[in-house]
Amino acid sequence: MNYFSSHFKLGILGGGQLGKMLLFDTRKFDVQTYVLDPSDEAPCKIACNHFFQGDLMDFETVYNFGKQVDVLTFEIELVNLEALEKLENEGIKVYPSPKTLKLIQNKGIQKEFYVSNNIPTAPFEKFENLEILKSKIQNLKLPFVWKCTEFGYDGNGVKIIRTLEDLDNLPNVECIAEEMVPFKNELAVIVCRNPSGEIKTYPVVEMEFHPEANQVEYVICPARIDYNLAEKARAIALNVSEKFNHVGLLAVEMFQTEDDEILVNEVAPRPHNSGHYSIEASYTSQFENHLRAILDLPLGNTDSKVAGIMVNLTGAEGFSGDVIYENIETILGWNGVTPHIYGKKQTRAFRKMGHVTIVNEDINEARRIAEDVKNTIRVISGQ
Amino acid sequence: MNYFSSHFKLGILGGGQLGKMLLFDTRKFDVQTYVLDPSDEAPCKIACNHFFQGDLMDFETVYNFGKQVDVLTFEIELVNLEALEKLENEGIKVYPSPKTLKLIQNKGIQKEFYVSNNIPTAPFEKFENLEILKSKIQNLKLPFVWKCTEFGYDGNGVKIIRTLEDLDNLPNVECIAEEMVPFKNELAVIVCRNPSGEIKTYPVVEMEFHPEANQVEYVICPARIDYNLAEKARAIALNVSEKFNHVGLLAVEMFQTEDDEILVNEVAPRPHNSGHYSIEASYTSQFENHLRAILDLPLGNTDSKVAGIMVNLTGAEGFSGDVIYENIETILGWNGVTPHIYGKKQTRAFRKMGHVTIVNEDINEARRIAEDVKNTIRVISGQ
Repeated sequence: MNYFSSHFKLGILGGGQLGKMLLFDTRKFDVQTYVLDPSDEAPCKIACNHFFQGDLMDFETVYNFGKQVDVLTFEIELVNLEALEKLENEGIKVYPSPKTLKLIQNKGIQKEFYVSNNIPTAPFEKFENLEILKSKIQNLKLPFVWKCTEFGYDGNGVKIIRTLEDLDNLPNVECIAEEMVPFKNELAVIVCRNPSGEIKTYPVVEMEFHPEANQVEYVICPARIDYNLAEKARAIALNVSEKFNHVGLLAVEMFQTEDDEILVNEVAPRPHNSGHYSIEASYTSQFENHLRAILDLPLGNTDSKVAGIMVNLTGAEGFSGDVIYENIETILGWNGVTPHIYGKKQTRAFRKMGHVTIVNEDINEARRIAEDVKNTIRVISGQ
Repeated sequence: MNYFSSHFKLGILGGGQLGKMLLFDTRKFDVQTYVLDPSDEAPCKIACNHFFQGDLMDFETVYNFGKQVDVLTFEIELVNLEALEKLENEGIKVYPSPKTLKLIQNKGIQKEFYVSNNIPTAPFEKFENLEILKSKIQNLKLPFVWKCTEFGYDGNGVKIIRTLEDLDNLPNVECIAEEMVPFKNELAVIVCRNPSGEIKTYPVVEMEFHPEANQVEYVICPARIDYNLAEKARAIALNVSEKFNHVGLLAVEMFQTEDDEILVNEVAPRPHNSGHYSIEASYTSQFENHLRAILDLPLGNTDSKVAGIMVNLTGAEGFSGDVIYENIETILGWNGVTPHIYGKKQTRAFRKMGHVTIVNEDINEARRIAEDVKNTIRVISGQ
């Protein structure tokens, strides 16, 4: 199959920042792209060959979009599954496959999948809805983590339940109650696999949390953990990937418990925030490897050239409107600092507006610079 | 000045592969771009915000295009100089400045500039036209290099004159006759400078020539020459840059003579083929640093993370039409190999269609892989 400067068509569901970064590589290989996104201000609107505005959850919209392309992928899981299944049945290559997505889209099914495949994960119980959970509350040990099984995204759809009052105002939908496992570290491993079965893992990364606010501040590659533990995490991620039999990228998020057990938290079958460092630090970025994988090309080297740390750029609280990246000129003057601005014109509190990668031969120096970056740049709004 | 996701407008004259690679960084910073190119199939047509088709040598076209933007740059020297001068006089920031371009656009003026600034360069004589050169042929030592002073590009406009017959069919235009200096190596140094005067040089690169065909096969970073010579080349490049007082990138091509003298061959005031390796190998690519420079942002680190070698992908002789990159899947399987496909749909003999970068911690291993790449991939046409 000739992909390069040819009539081949790649379809991408979702036109956000993940799609935008994927387009850098479709452009580099001159692979023709079709993108579907609900917003006509989507970051992917330029740099793709053909942009379509439409609802990713609407069967007709997704089906008609998919019929135009040779290979279809997505940068967000919240897409119409039935349309993907019909397209696959009609011979369109859909990667990751709807079969894989089906096991992941619903967090209840995903958790049950881990259990039935002996993949270590935190104990949980599934409930048809919130009322049933409440009726069985006496069996649940507080605190626990409430998660709605569907349509949760970026933290919404997840809540820590410390008292019964915390259950108030939650939607009465299917949900799980997950035991809160005390952990030392959140780790992630990105696994890449092509249809021919070639498979590679990126190094284990570490999410460093803010001591007070329970929020990831830094993604650090490689994780500052011992070798055997890292190998264990990589092996578990490989096992998860094989069980899902996925194609493309699979980001496997894990907990390192107090007693150095590894528990799988959840997975994402697409390029992932925990892999953004790879654009600057790795021989092959996660985006290029996702593209290589879904086109069944040989996978690129997942090793790092240098240490990489990523800091998210999220909208500062108390600001909304036309975005301003305060002090970005300052951080640009520092060694190995690269901002990625996603292209959203309007900021609001906590909105993901971009990220900054810091690379350095010395991971401790990178970490020091990353902290300066975090303390210097601010995503605010004009006036 | 707020460049990021703002109303700021950057204009780029020329929409070829250099512009295309620059757009990766304007997209990364979400800087709004306007591009002018004569071809409506220009590689820059997508990924810029606004594309205009028009003649880069036409005063009105360039002037009207430039009036729309805040900062204007170019990816090719063959642009209408008078329009740039008028735009600069009217307050548009033009980088590099027309004053610099004026000294470079005409190879005769460029050579005279080196002489008057004591910059080492090969001896030459300038002639108003070919007839006058012929009339003074007895004063010229054969062989020599004939160069037309204007509008030469990618080798055309340059010819080695070994016998008088070689002068036949040359255009009767202003030209220079340059002494043929026997050299060991062709070297290049890219200098980056912003309006505030911050200045950085990339490491010295080496152009390795094919033993028979007199054609650059590999651009190798760092050059495999001794440290003192490299420092000498860097110092000369810095001096050239200061004399031109340029803003943006200046690629300085040099000869290393048999007796290790450094002679300046010519310069290009823009991103350059000899800097393509920097996308994968350097902390900051030449394109990002060009963008930082013309926006008067701090310059990024020009050091390399790893060794880098570039191989040009040019159309194979005897093929023309819809391009096919033969064996590209094979080279994608090799360590540290990244193809860049410029996006020209039609190939023809010697047309620049793309390049391949090979990065590795070990430069000799990179060189070995680069040779395999060179011997494996072929740019041919279908049918």
